[in-house]
Amino acid sequence: MRARNVVASAYIVVTAVLLLVCPENTVGQAPRSRGPLAIVVHGGAGTISRASMAAELEEQYRSKLTEALQAGYAILEKGGSSLNAVETAVAILEDSPLFNAGRGAVLTSEGQAELDASIMDGNTLKAGAVTVLRHVKNPIRLARLVMERSPHVMLAEEGAEQFAAANGIEMVDSSYFLTERRINELQRAKEREEKKKQRAAPDSGGGTVGCVALDCNGNLAAATSTGGKTNKYPGRIGDSPIIGAGNYADNHTCAISGTGDGEYFIRGVAAYDISALMLYGGMTLQEAADTVVMSKLKKLGGTGGVIGLDGKGNIAMPFNTEGMYRGFIDKDGRLEIQFYRD
Amino acid sequence: MRARNVVASAYIVVTAVLLLVCPENTVGQAPRSRGPLAIVVHGGAGTISRASMAAELEEQYRSKLTEALQAGYAILEKGGSSLNAVETAVAILEDSPLFNAGRGAVLTSEGQAELDASIMDGNTLKAGAVTVLRHVKNPIRLARLVMERSPHVMLAEEGAEQFAAANGIEMVDSSYFLTERRINELQRAKEREEKKKQRAAPDSGGGTVGCVALDCNGNLAAATSTGGKTNKYPGRIGDSPIIGAGNYADNHTCAISGTGDGEYFIRGVAAYDISALMLYGGMTLQEAADTVVMSKLKKLGGTGGVIGLDGKGNIAMPFNTEGMYRGFIDKDGRLEIQFYRD
Repeated sequence: MRARNVVASAYIVVTAVLLLVCPENTVGQAPRSRGPLAIVVHGGAGTISRASMAAELEEQYRSKLTEALQAGYAILEKGGSSLNAVETAVAILEDSPLFNAGRGAVLTSEGQAELDASIMDGNTLKAGAVTVLRHVKNPIRLARLVMERSPHVMLAEEGAEQFAAANGIEMVDSSYFLTERRINELQRAKEREEKKKQRAAPDSGGGTVGCVALDCNGNLAAATSTGGKTNKYPGRIGDSPIIGAGNYADNHTCAISGTGDGEYFIRGVAAYDISALMLYGGMTLQEAADTVVMSKLKKLGGTGGVIGLDGKGNIAMPFNTEGMYRGFIDKDGRLEIQFYRD
Repeated sequence: MRARNVVASAYIVVTAVLLLVCPENTVGQAPRSRGPLAIVVHGGAGTISRASMAAELEEQYRSKLTEALQAGYAILEKGGSSLNAVETAVAILEDSPLFNAGRGAVLTSEGQAELDASIMDGNTLKAGAVTVLRHVKNPIRLARLVMERSPHVMLAEEGAEQFAAANGIEMVDSSYFLTERRINELQRAKEREEKKKQRAAPDSGGGTVGCVALDCNGNLAAATSTGGKTNKYPGRIGDSPIIGAGNYADNHTCAISGTGDGEYFIRGVAAYDISALMLYGGMTLQEAADTVVMSKLKKLGGTGGVIGLDGKGNIAMPFNTEGMYRGFIDKDGRLEIQFYRD
C-alpha cells in the first residue's frame, strides 16, 4: 500500500515536471502538446478596403503576418512559452516598415518617432511596459526586460532608454524610424491642419501590431507595440503600453491586444473590460469582445478592434472599422490571414 | 391641451437647465442640493501606527486633510462640479510637504522628483493623466488641462511639460521638490541597498494623495497624485496616472482613488476592477472594494488601499496596510478623519 503511494507520488512529480517543461526538452522526439496551441496577430485596424488595396501590397502584408505567425507558432510547437511566442511575433512586425510599430512608426508633430509597447503573462499576471522611446529598435523586447529584470511594470522616455542601454538592448539612431511614408503622412496631416487654421486632432495612425498566444501549458500571453498617432503631441501615451487598456492577459479568461483610437481604449479600460465581462458577466470571449468593441467603445466614440484568445484556444477578432490586418494559426493548425470585413 | 403641453415643455426645459447649473447661479439664495453630496480624501497607506505617531504630527495631518475636504466640499455645496472639488482638494494636498505628491514627493534613485497624476470625470468618462513631471507645481491641474485642452488622455515627461508651459501652468525649479525629509529617505534607502550589495526594490513611498467626490448633479469624479516610490528608477510610471489602475470614475458605479504598491495596482487593474465587480458582479461598493483590496491585491502580493464613493454617497475606504490617512464629509455633512485600523 505504502509502496504504491510512493510510486504514485513519483508519477505525479514526473508529470508535474513534464507539464512545466512541455515537449521542449524531449530531444529527438516529435513534440507532443497536451493542450491546444494557438496564436493570433494583428497589424492594425482602420480604412482597409479591398477596392483601394493594391495586390502587391496585399501580398506584402499577407507574407509578413504569415512570417510572424509561423515564427511564434514554431516556438509553441517546440513547447516554448506563449511569452516567447508573442515577443518573437511582435518583434518581426516591428522590424517591418509596413506597420506602425518599430521601424515603420508614425511621427509626432515634431517629426520624431515615439514608441510604446507592453507585454503580459497570463499565468503570473506579471507585465512590462515602455513608452515614449526614441532609440530602441524593438520596444517589445524592452517591455519584456522591464517585466523580468526591473522592480517596475512601466518605464518612460529617458529612464526607459537608460535601462535599455544598461541591459544590452539594441539601440538605433532616431533616423532609423524616419521612413519616407511616415514623413509624407505627417506632412499631409500638417497641411490639413493648416487649412483648418487650427490644431487638428492627431490622425489615427493605424498599423499598431499585437499578438496573443496559448502555449502547451495552457498559459496565455499578450504583446502590443505601436508608434501611436500621426502628428500626436510629443510625450503622448496611448493605450498600447497601458495594462488593461490596449493589452491584457489572464489564464482564467483571455489574452487581448487592441488597436485603434488609444484614448478611447484607455477611457474604456477596453482590454481588461473584455476579461471582466467573461469573469464576472459569464460571457464567452466572442460575446465579451463584441460587447466592448462593437458596442461600448463605439458608444464612447472610439474606433478600432482587438484580437483575443481564451484558454481553450477560441479566437475572437472583432473590429468596428472598415478592416483590420489580422491572422491566426488555430488549435487545429489552420493558418488564415484576413484584411477586410467580408 | 396644446397650451398646457407648451407650458409643460417650458417647465421641463427650465428644470433641465436648473439641473445642469445646480444651485451655483442662484445668487443670494441658500444652496439647495437635489442629490446627496460627499467627498473623500486619502493621503496614502502604509506603516501608520498610533504608537509611532507623534501627537503634533497627527495634528498636522488632521488639519491638512480637513482643509482639503472642506475646500472641496465648499465647491460641492455651491453647486460646483465634483471635478472642481477633487482637483481643488488634491492641489491643496500637493502643496503640503506632508504627502508624497507635489511639494513633498519622494525622490528617484537619481535624487529627483518625478510626479504623476490623473483625473477622471464619471459623467463623460473623460480623463487626463500626466507622468514623469519634474517642474510642474500641481500635477493634478495639468492632468485636468490634458483632459480638457488636448486631444489626448495621457502625456509624459518633456512633452507634458511643453504642453504645461504653453498652457500657463505654474512651473517651478526642480529644487522646489527637494525637501530634507525626502533627501534623508533616499539616503537611507541607498544605505540599505549598499548593505545588501544589490539593487533593492524601491521603497513604497506612501503618502500618495487622492480625492473622490459626488456633486449635486449626481456626477462622480476621481483625482490622484503622487511622487511614486523612494529610490524608484528614473522614468518609472506607477498606477496613479493609469486610468483603471490607480484612478477611475463612472457615474454608473463609483469613483476610486488608490494608494500603495503601484505595480500591483497596474497588474490587477485595481480601480476599474472595483467598478466591474459592481457593474457585472452585482456587488455593492463596499463588497467590491473589499474584494479587490483585501483579497485580490493581497493575493497578488500588493499592499495598499483605496477610497471609493458611489452615486448614492456611500463611502468605502478599505486598506490592507497598518494604516491609511483618510477622511470624508459624508451625505449627512459629517466630517471624519481617520489614520489607523481601529
